[in-house]
Amino acid sequence: MSNVAEARSPAWSWLGFRLVETGDGTAVVDMTTTENMANHSGFVHGGIISALADSAMGRSLRTLKPGVSRAMSFDLKLSFISAAKIGEELRAAGKVVHAGRRTVVTECRIEGKDGRLIATASGTFAVTREKE
Amino acid sequence: MSNVAEARSPAWSWLGFRLVETGDGTAVVDMTTTENMANHSGFVHGGIISALADSAMGRSLRTLKPGVSRAMSFDLKLSFISAAKIGEELRAAGKVVHAGRRTVVTECRIEGKDGRLIATASGTFAVTREKE
Amino acid sequence: MSNVAEARSPAWSWLGFRLVETGDGTAVVDMTTTENMANHSGFVHGGIISALADSAMGRSLRTLKPGVSRAMSFDLKLSFISAAKIGEELRAAGKVVHAGRRTVVTECRIEGKDGRLIATASGTFAVTREKE
Amino acid sequence: MSNVAEARSPAWSWLGFRLVETGDGTAVVDMTTTENMANHSGFVHGGIISALADSAMGRSLRTLKPGVSRAMSFDLKLSFISAAKIGEELRAAGKVVHAGRRTVVTECRIEGKDGRLIATASGTFAVTREKE
Repeated sequence: MSNVAEARSPAWSWLGFRLVETGDGTAVVDMTTTENMANHSGFVHGGIISALADSAMGRSLRTLKPGVSRAMSFDLKLSFISAAKIGEELRAAGKVVHAGRRTVVTECRIEGKDGRLIATASGTFAVTREKE
Repeated sequence: MSNVAEARSPAWSWLGFRLVETGDGTAVVDMTTTENMANHSGFVHGGIISALADSAMGRSLRTLKPGVSRAMSFDLKLSFISAAKIGEELRAAGKVVHAGRRTVVTECRIEGKDGRLIATASGTFAVTREKE
Repeated sequence: MSNVAEARSPAWSWLGFRLVETGDGTAVVDMTTTENMANHSGFVHGGIISALADSAMGRSLRTLKPGVSRAMSFDLKLSFISAAKIGEELRAAGKVVHAGRRTVVTECRIEGKDGRLIATASGTFAVTREKE
Repeated sequence: MSNVAEARSPAWSWLGFRLVETGDGTAVVDMTTTENMANHSGFVHGGIISALADSAMGRSLRTLKPGVSRAMSFDLKLSFISAAKIGEELRAAGKVVHAGRRTVVTECRIEGKDGRLIATASGTFAVTREKE
């Protein structure tokens, strides 16, 4: 899929986010957590999980038609459910729940490789959409 | 202040978070954003802002008496207000709003060097507190 | 189903909430909005939508095994998507996303009779669970 | 103050919300909780607290200059801190944290008559502002 090969932002590269697939209003993003991301308890810092969720949700709305030319998240809500281990591979599935003309509401689910739920998230984005 | 010299977690070092000061139920954390943190629009990735907020709030509750021996955020809510520029120094002021026996509620305000509001956040932490 | 006939709290009666069905970790609650619930714009007040979401989520966790003897929501997040009209019947579907020993994470979707999405919500509850 | 005498919406009347005062970007709203509002545990239903917070925040932005001609909350986040007793008088202090051209971010603090913190909230509103 061509999306997979697209240019990544500096943050995506630095954080190691990888686009796995996209659909209509959906995007799946993977990452492998590293030692750098450990908090005081030795688990993955919550902010890294937040970054992954924000990215998967932001990517999911780029699949909308008519297209989104600009998007800025202005609201992000996370529920952390289980701690993510360093070295663990995480998968975030973002999806559009509502696509308006000026705002888009999204949700995300982050799971570990073993399928356990790490976090859920929702986010609202202010968008500019292309003319049809 | 001895807190300032304390050991930082790997994530704090990697993200460049610096503890500036702590008070009773408060903590101020600074960071200088880098090129690595840029999103597609060229501004600081929202996840990095989230990480900073989470860290300042998590640090603020470590100042409580009786002390907090374990803390895990299980809820994080952010409102992004203005975009942060790459290279900009950000300051997060976290504070405890409510300190219970099992849960602590915190808030945070993130500002740019010029004093404009970048984001507000709130977070809830499950904690284990030391005996008095 | 016996649950449907169970005693309602004063708030449920006053707000007109009706339990439609329950499953494993799920609950569906209906309401018919009334003139009393109109905000300045003539639509249903957001707080009423919040009350419905909170109720459906709180009810969904009562279906867990081992049972929940006490539950108190301490976190509620809503995204309002389309305005609800006065007189419109609303349906809230609450479900448990994660059931821990001390905390339960839930989600909810509120729809109008015509199937359009009115709001999404998530909530975290502090619970006391019965012994197995 | 003329604001105090202004027409209330049906929901405000029904829920017993009373505007106490307004300032630049602030509004204080009181309510006396009633038996109707009791949840299963005999405390005030979280949805009623949500309605009060939503109202105080929505009212606070009506004080902005240039004025707000239309406002719709599309995001509401609450942290419930202590249970409110039936019959207890609650006071919600809403304030504008950021006033943009299209969106306004607000916060709220709800206290009991005895000054203890009942809940904190934040909300984002889509607004239409008058020309200056």
